[in-house]
Amino acid sequence: MKDFSIDDFRYDGSKPLKVKKAPNKVDDLYEDDAHYEAMLRQQAIEMDIWQEQMFSHNRFGLVAVFQALDAAGKDGTIKAVFTGTNPTGVKVSSFKRPTEKELEHDFLWRSWLELPERGTIAVFNRSYYEEVLVTKVHPDILTTSQRLPEKATDDLDKLFKHRYEAIRDMEKYLNRNGFPTIKFFLHVSKKEQADRLIARIKDADKNWKFEEGDVAEREFWDDYQDAYEEAINETATDNSPWYVIPADDKKNMRLIVSRIIIAELKKLPTAAQKPDEERFKKLQKLISVIEGQ
Amino acid sequence: MKDFSIDDFRYDGSKPLKVKKAPNKVDDLYEDDAHYEAMLRQQAIEMDIWQEQMFSHNRFGLVAVFQALDAAGKDGTIKAVFTGTNPTGVKVSSFKRPTEKELEHDFLWRSWLELPERGTIAVFNRSYYEEVLVTKVHPDILTTSQRLPEKATDDLDKLFKHRYEAIRDMEKYLNRNGFPTIKFFLHVSKKEQADRLIARIKDADKNWKFEEGDVAEREFWDDYQDAYEEAINETATDNSPWYVIPADDKKNMRLIVSRIIIAELKKLPTAAQKPDEERFKKLQKLISVIEGQ
Repeated sequence: MKDFSIDDFRYDGSKPLKVKKAPNKVDDLYEDDAHYEAMLRQQAIEMDIWQEQMFSHNRFGLVAVFQALDAAGKDGTIKAVFTGTNPTGVKVSSFKRPTEKELEHDFLWRSWLELPERGTIAVFNRSYYEEVLVTKVHPDILTTSQRLPEKATDDLDKLFKHRYEAIRDMEKYLNRNGFPTIKFFLHVSKKEQADRLIARIKDADKNWKFEEGDVAEREFWDDYQDAYEEAINETATDNSPWYVIPADDKKNMRLIVSRIIIAELKKLPTAAQKPDEERFKKLQKLISVIEGQ
Repeated sequence: MKDFSIDDFRYDGSKPLKVKKAPNKVDDLYEDDAHYEAMLRQQAIEMDIWQEQMFSHNRFGLVAVFQALDAAGKDGTIKAVFTGTNPTGVKVSSFKRPTEKELEHDFLWRSWLELPERGTIAVFNRSYYEEVLVTKVHPDILTTSQRLPEKATDDLDKLFKHRYEAIRDMEKYLNRNGFPTIKFFLHVSKKEQADRLIARIKDADKNWKFEEGDVAEREFWDDYQDAYEEAINETATDNSPWYVIPADDKKNMRLIVSRIIIAELKKLPTAAQKPDEERFKKLQKLISVIEGQ
């Protein structure tokens, strides 16, 4: 059993990510299943406390973005990490293939709608990053389903540069206004993905999770790795870091993600809130008013 | 009767605006009321044609922001200029004092919700610019009603610099994605505003438009002029220009605004759309299918 520093997984622009060198595995953080469950439960309690602290302070909100290839474990991680936090303070938004209505807008629009209120955590299951990932691997999407100005798609390198810039600008702005963004790339190996997809086929109970399209997407494995590497390096900043999480063991991944969220919540200057003595004194006088009613 | 060039009123960053030197009046563009009505009607037809052109092309949308001091004529101008354009293609959003729900978000959030779909015009009656105008004149709003991070309000110069930057970034991004923004400052003189406010008091039919608070705000006249000058100079760009419109004569103002909107619609590369001959040929074959049904 090992411990870890969250900085091991953090990319904030100070060092480049080489996605092929980033580990898919770490030594186990837990001794056995019971130990894992106990750790996860303990961390959930801690997260709930810090989310409540942010809620009572009511100036900050957190955006937690989850990106990954198929079967890397986004859904399960979100479920494991945030179950146990007051659902008033957590809103999960899943971004699927853009709808016709969403395509009538700019690519960031649907994400703005889902940004958090102060005091709460917005969890993005996929996000605006799809627009520099799946469109990078399949650029025909840009000209077939998206109705961009013709000029914008003439030069795809420029288009993606502009998109990275737009994302950096948005995250910088949100951070300045009290809404830091943290981004997780759940980094699964090609072999482990194969095992999970095959398990979904073999087990009738898991068939609902299997999508035929995922097999075809595996052909683009290297392109996706490149797209993630570039997108992460282009958008990793100190205020809006990426965390590249080894995803081949789900339990380790969940423990690590949970620890990172707690650490990021603790970093917010919400803990400095002190009781307001003046207000406290004023309130005491109301006791007799209430008693007299 | 004079003609004019829209460039007379355009600020795109190439020259600084000196608000005190910008005219509140121009020579009349019309001979008499009947002539004004005929011109306005003619321009409305032209605007409708160009909006439809943008709608059929379905790649661009226009954001038209209206900002002004009280009684400068925002509501009347919007009504006069856009009545006669297909309402499917025009959506007016009025931004009043932020609601509790809106204050739970960053200051741009409520505007993002109202951004146009492709092919349509979003008219903003007031806008996110209020957040660098009314808050500039009354900075206590920032610390009393807005729940910003404490650090953000320590240095107000920096806060406004960041807000200008955020606005520039947003408008640049929107323009790149097919949604140019044009901004109107309806520039009324202090004397003309006084006349209009007094008329609202004297005429019982107009009393509903009078707000007592407008009188108090007149005390801050110079501060508002400075705030407009700075905000316009900080956010006037070639892609998202400001137009400073002489507002002391409502009819001239409406004709000028209408002409500018038409000019901006005409600038969009939507006119280049040519009939698609291949599709035309394919479609011909469908005639016999329809006839056979």
